[in-house]
Amino acid sequence: MFSEQEKELLAERMVTGNLYKLKHLTESVQPEELAELINESKHIDVRKVFQVLEAEKAIKTFENLDFDIQEELLGTFSVEQLSHTLNQISPDDRTALFEKLSQETLQKYLSLLSDEERKTANQLLQYPEDSIGRLMTPDFISVKEDWTIQQVLDYIRKYGKDSETLNVIYVTDPKGFLQDDIKVRDFLLAPLDKKVGDLMTRQVVALYARDDQEKAIDIFKQTNRVALPVTDFNGLLLGIVTFDDMMDVIEEEDTEDIQKFGGTEALSEPYLKVSLREMVSKRAGWLIILFLGEMLTASAMGFFNDELNKAVVLALFVPLIISSGGNSGSQAATLIIRAMALGEITLSNWWRVMRREFLSGLLLGTLLGLIGFMRIAAWTLFTDLYGPHWLLIAFTVGFTLIGVVLWGTLSGSMLPMLLKKLGFDPAVSSAPFIATLVDVTGLIIYFSIAFLILKGTLL
Amino acid sequence: MFSEQEKELLAERMVTGNLYKLKHLTESVQPEELAELINESKHIDVRKVFQVLEAEKAIKTFENLDFDIQEELLGTFSVEQLSHTLNQISPDDRTALFEKLSQETLQKYLSLLSDEERKTANQLLQYPEDSIGRLMTPDFISVKEDWTIQQVLDYIRKYGKDSETLNVIYVTDPKGFLQDDIKVRDFLLAPLDKKVGDLMTRQVVALYARDDQEKAIDIFKQTNRVALPVTDFNGLLLGIVTFDDMMDVIEEEDTEDIQKFGGTEALSEPYLKVSLREMVSKRAGWLIILFLGEMLTASAMGFFNDELNKAVVLALFVPLIISSGGNSGSQAATLIIRAMALGEITLSNWWRVMRREFLSGLLLGTLLGLIGFMRIAAWTLFTDLYGPHWLLIAFTVGFTLIGVVLWGTLSGSMLPMLLKKLGFDPAVSSAPFIATLVDVTGLIIYFSIAFLILKGTLL
Repeated sequence: MFSEQEKELLAERMVTGNLYKLKHLTESVQPEELAELINESKHIDVRKVFQVLEAEKAIKTFENLDFDIQEELLGTFSVEQLSHTLNQISPDDRTALFEKLSQETLQKYLSLLSDEERKTANQLLQYPEDSIGRLMTPDFISVKEDWTIQQVLDYIRKYGKDSETLNVIYVTDPKGFLQDDIKVRDFLLAPLDKKVGDLMTRQVVALYARDDQEKAIDIFKQTNRVALPVTDFNGLLLGIVTFDDMMDVIEEEDTEDIQKFGGTEALSEPYLKVSLREMVSKRAGWLIILFLGEMLTASAMGFFNDELNKAVVLALFVPLIISSGGNSGSQAATLIIRAMALGEITLSNWWRVMRREFLSGLLLGTLLGLIGFMRIAAWTLFTDLYGPHWLLIAFTVGFTLIGVVLWGTLSGSMLPMLLKKLGFDPAVSSAPFIATLVDVTGLIIYFSIAFLILKGTLL
Repeated sequence: MFSEQEKELLAERMVTGNLYKLKHLTESVQPEELAELINESKHIDVRKVFQVLEAEKAIKTFENLDFDIQEELLGTFSVEQLSHTLNQISPDDRTALFEKLSQETLQKYLSLLSDEERKTANQLLQYPEDSIGRLMTPDFISVKEDWTIQQVLDYIRKYGKDSETLNVIYVTDPKGFLQDDIKVRDFLLAPLDKKVGDLMTRQVVALYARDDQEKAIDIFKQTNRVALPVTDFNGLLLGIVTFDDMMDVIEEEDTEDIQKFGGTEALSEPYLKVSLREMVSKRAGWLIILFLGEMLTASAMGFFNDELNKAVVLALFVPLIISSGGNSGSQAATLIIRAMALGEITLSNWWRVMRREFLSGLLLGTLLGLIGFMRIAAWTLFTDLYGPHWLLIAFTVGFTLIGVVLWGTLSGSMLPMLLKKLGFDPAVSSAPFIATLVDVTGLIIYFSIAFLILKGTLL
């Protein structure tokens, strides 16, 4: 692979070179790398590149292009090129392309497929969005239990060319029901006269075509397989999913989680490709909800207006206090949400988590409380901003910090678990969401403690 | 793979069953699944399980166990078992185990290795932590350019057993320098009398052993390979890295990023396994830094103490205003940090990003400003909390929200890019970090606008 500099240089040369030079350049890189170069550089003339690519490499490169480039490129193809490309690309990549097209374009493209490929394409598109079926390709090699290894190897040599992977070979019964998956490794190491049946363990792990893609992620991570078979609920082998497709799904899911956690709806496309309209509307939704929630702080402050008027000094520490609650809450929420996503903790651990977070919150709160207390004490040496009752104020702020950090930590850790329990996505309890929640309650804690400590002096 | 329920049931049966039943149960699952079961259930007697496992399955299962279980289990092994296990597990999994051991245990375990394995182990441990060398295994198959396909297949059958993968075969020159990597697919599809040289493209993508693991992640994602060769800077083939090891690294890196983004140092172990001491100290660091930063808000508020005393009503909106800045900032930071991590935007895009974020910030700010204005206007119908100058206050809050959201959005988007430019990890500019930064400046914006609008009336 290339460094950033090499990439820029190559892209540069692909932009400036003539067709002959371009042909030479494209021959020196793998299709995956070529696609990467095109995806990242805005200046490469994709059409020119595809003029010089030989057929097979063009298909492989095309499969790895971003959707918008694929779409644009297809628009420039002749009907023959279009039909060739759509028929040749592997069914899973084709589904990924088709599911993003407009209905009109999709119909046009489907009409360009051969009868067999159209049937495959339509079948795959029938699976629900985000289901495993949408990721699957029906191009796999299946063999029978009573074949010898020699027969299998001969069969692969003859019919293996179109299979998405040859790293795993599938064993089916005569009706096509999945019996086992065997790594090609086992075939390569076995004596040629052994039978397929001798290699079988019948411990096959299969995905269901109608299951959610998230399920596939979990199973891929757990089994460390490069490909997994996909069956219907009866065990009929329908296709396979390969790990490279999974990698894309994992990345997408992680991006969604991270964006949600930052308090924004997940974007449908890469940052620079999303329209300003989508960008603003995806952000505005949560921002307004949070804003409306945060308005309760103004109400809470208004409720304590009398106290504030008597002791304006209390207002000085409001930002410090509410942000400490928000920060400790978002720490806790992050840790819990990620640990749940990784399966490190489950809902049944809630009591253990709560005890841990109670102790953590208490310790962290005491720490911040002490620092806050000392800060007020120290400032008093230089200024009389805090007046004659500075010690009481210092106690108020100190105790409030303990309470607010403890409360923030507990909310931040329990809310994601509660959301999950209720069937929501725990990542919704984003850092800003927790912060907003804790802000309002933090103010109530602050003024209640102030009332207790300052009653009869300042209040 | 199993559902949660099936897993619990299996684990349950493994706990209660006698040795004979246990043996039967373990035979029905793959080593990876068995390891998963053990990792997730606290109650399974690992020692008992390993008594009934046959040798090869025991090794494969061991390789997939969590470190603390591995460590505990090794402690119960006899010297023979210990020596057998340590010599048999694959070198990359062994490195992962060894790098976490105490110096004393490591020395003891090294002494139990055969001369050859000890040499390998020591070599791998010499690579820097988090370098690709630490992930690598020297168990691969390499062939020569002038061999026929038949020779290659015979060679694999004879010597392939220990190779970490047979999905990719490496071509080296007589001195061991990497010439090419060829998918086993190509060997399986080629006529048996063809030469290796006929299959070579010489477009090999290699990792450098001393490079950082993050580099390997990028290249794996870009090339969609199941394994990549690792060389020294001269091109001498040292080993290979397989995608299943990469998956673990990717997960770890993502966890670190997410935890950092939540404003905490990355934990060294899963949530429930980290000691309370580590948990608190990893969180306390950032919390204290943020707290110290947030103290500037108390200073800023103190600076505007006179204004506050004259117009206590201004204090009511402080939480609303600073949190709006923080929320919009953390939205922007999340989007930018993730987009940079995915390579969607690079530093050279900063100007485009800034223009986008300026527009987004202005639009979002205006939206919140309008809502804020209307909120104050509406409340005035029911309460005289905001006094006779409510309209001026509404304007103050409205304009402040525009400024603060714009400022939050710009800081949130530019700070991660600036940090990256300066060589820091952009994920350090976490949601809490941005929020703290924006809080202080938000107050200054607020009181400045208040001063301009309310001068001569309230102030």
